[in-house]
Amino acid sequence: MAVGPASFPAMPVIEGLRLGTAKAGIKTAERRDLVVFEVPEGATVAGSFTRNAFCAAPVTVAREHLAACTLHGEAPRYLVINTGNANAGTGDVGLRDARATCAELGRLAGVKSSCVLPFSTGVIGETLPMERLLGGLPEALRSLDEGPKGWAAAGEGILTTDTRPKGASVTIQLGDETVTLNGISKGSGMIKPNMATMLAFVATDAALAPALLEELLRETVERSFNCITVDGDTSTNDACMLIATGRGAAINDDHRLALFRDALQQLMIELAQAIVRDGEGATKFVSLQVDGAVSRQEALDVAFTVAHSPLVKTALAASDANWGRILAAVGRAPVVDFDVDRVVIDLGEVRLVEGGGRAAGYTEDAGSEVMAREEIPIRIDLGRGERSATVWTTDLTREYVAINADYRS
Amino acid sequence: MAVGPASFPAMPVIEGLRLGTAKAGIKTAERRDLVVFEVPEGATVAGSFTRNAFCAAPVTVAREHLAACTLHGEAPRYLVINTGNANAGTGDVGLRDARATCAELGRLAGVKSSCVLPFSTGVIGETLPMERLLGGLPEALRSLDEGPKGWAAAGEGILTTDTRPKGASVTIQLGDETVTLNGISKGSGMIKPNMATMLAFVATDAALAPALLEELLRETVERSFNCITVDGDTSTNDACMLIATGRGAAINDDHRLALFRDALQQLMIELAQAIVRDGEGATKFVSLQVDGAVSRQEALDVAFTVAHSPLVKTALAASDANWGRILAAVGRAPVVDFDVDRVVIDLGEVRLVEGGGRAAGYTEDAGSEVMAREEIPIRIDLGRGERSATVWTTDLTREYVAINADYRS
Repeated sequence: MAVGPASFPAMPVIEGLRLGTAKAGIKTAERRDLVVFEVPEGATVAGSFTRNAFCAAPVTVAREHLAACTLHGEAPRYLVINTGNANAGTGDVGLRDARATCAELGRLAGVKSSCVLPFSTGVIGETLPMERLLGGLPEALRSLDEGPKGWAAAGEGILTTDTRPKGASVTIQLGDETVTLNGISKGSGMIKPNMATMLAFVATDAALAPALLEELLRETVERSFNCITVDGDTSTNDACMLIATGRGAAINDDHRLALFRDALQQLMIELAQAIVRDGEGATKFVSLQVDGAVSRQEALDVAFTVAHSPLVKTALAASDANWGRILAAVGRAPVVDFDVDRVVIDLGEVRLVEGGGRAAGYTEDAGSEVMAREEIPIRIDLGRGERSATVWTTDLTREYVAINADYRS
Repeated sequence: MAVGPASFPAMPVIEGLRLGTAKAGIKTAERRDLVVFEVPEGATVAGSFTRNAFCAAPVTVAREHLAACTLHGEAPRYLVINTGNANAGTGDVGLRDARATCAELGRLAGVKSSCVLPFSTGVIGETLPMERLLGGLPEALRSLDEGPKGWAAAGEGILTTDTRPKGASVTIQLGDETVTLNGISKGSGMIKPNMATMLAFVATDAALAPALLEELLRETVERSFNCITVDGDTSTNDACMLIATGRGAAINDDHRLALFRDALQQLMIELAQAIVRDGEGATKFVSLQVDGAVSRQEALDVAFTVAHSPLVKTALAASDANWGRILAAVGRAPVVDFDVDRVVIDLGEVRLVEGGGRAAGYTEDAGSEVMAREEIPIRIDLGRGERSATVWTTDLTREYVAINADYRS
């Protein structure tokens, strides 16, 4: 199940950036489960990682290697991603395995081990099948491809319970130069990123200073991957990487920066929303906009309280305009001195709640008409300030339970 | 569905306290849906109410009337409870209806309107069918009964999606005096009390000063109803009332107070756990004990993070000892400077996690054996302090989704 049509664009070439995949048989045979990004020399790479205290071994090692590169004024040259096994909750063995993966890829490609960043996604708590994983690396390197085929294969190679690959591409014109931004993401359950969802990789040919790239990643992740939730569960393996090869246009003035930031934000939102649309068991894509808050954090708190309410989510699954459950969820959000009489709740173009209760002109028919849609916008105005936030989420269906009662994550 | 055997004791008489019920046809015909408690003169009553900002009209009125009684040195003489309609999100009409209910019962019984406290539970957002509700009051008064029949009928009369009535009784011996504590509760979904679950009514014949009764209620609710969760959704109508008729033994020294407090705590825990056991779609009763925290709040934060994790709850439903999901949930709890290597997680008598990963001696068979049980104890030691908390919860099943996609709460 998924909401809306699947789409994976034919990605334009980003010169020097190549993607390779292999079928290493990590969890199941005959599927792409190993992906390698080759990053050209002179690129800049920024990363954003899970805030789960039990972060997975590859997250620890990727952070270490990224810091080591920064210290030496270098950029990572390879990213290696496996699916089918998260290498999380695996203690010292997990760290050793993540390091051994980097060492072997470094040896094969002729770069230092610390220039390789590892990523894993899949089952938590089992050690990596190292022989099969390392055995797949030569195939992944042999298949390195700069074109859309490489991106398409990589988009598939990072999936777990996802029902479809997720990719997006944006180009912008800066004078007579075209800047390309390509990205892929994966994730379907255990989605309440406290940074970024499970995995996302974005690359551009633009040239940006490392500090600026970091700042742009932080900013755009905050308003994309950090604003989605499927089930409120933050993964141990979340990572979002942003690669700028630097071979294209330089982002060296405010006008270019504004254009680039907007394009990056748009791409990030598209990749983040794709994860929600493919949320486990999802039949609805819900946009929760909270306005009139005294701070963005307050708006986010209210939005996430509603987004995580099992009662709201099951009402959405049933296409039931059960505004009482939305109101009850808003009412238990952590808001100080909350005057509920000022709250207004709109479902699409239909006013549901005002003055502490059902809006005067509301009819069940009007509410049901909006709830029957696949894409449902809910707007909550707290009437107490000027700040806003938007969060995207799914409904909660029997299929979500079935998937997660049967799958080992 | 429910976990463990149903039981509703034959309640001993609490002299002067009478319970009446009626079939008022509030939502459906031919079921008890109206309950009246008659409290003898000279009693003391304490109340604890929902912290949901969108609290229901009866909660507002019950608070007002309780405060008015306290101001005048009186105690409430009647509690009136309807099921089938929560009178929540009903604005001014809801307040008027709650007040009219008190006025009519006051008129029939010959007491001031402010000596009547109203309670409602059921569908949110619809106005009360006042004619039928008021029409049922004489029948409820006619059936007032001091004995076990009155309690049994009341236990049924307050239910909504509950599959069975919930009652408990404790007696203690103070010298040659016997003190009785009886209680009933209701609730099954929208359960994450931030005070007390949907509704609970406890009565004793002991004599306690009003301030002491308040304090005991606050204390015991904190470690019973405030420690249960089914779905994390806090109701708009939660209330827990404690009535002390004062006709029995006086709680007038430390020894008696300690005995009484223990008995009250035991009763509250039993009533609270009964709600979890009857949680919507529940097939498991899970006890989550967190030790080694630096504060009780920290222990509660970790316990509730695990208790609300849909991935942990679906693994419980599947009897899958998926310790990786427990570990991931612990890891995203709001704990500052969390050293995950010190965390120990036990499933019953089986050690699951230590040193940041799977415990050395752990086997799937041992874990599966515990997970197959109906009652599952999980203990999480954070290894960073001396404080503890225990929270009780359920699994998340397809039936939970089915119930809540089909029922209008």
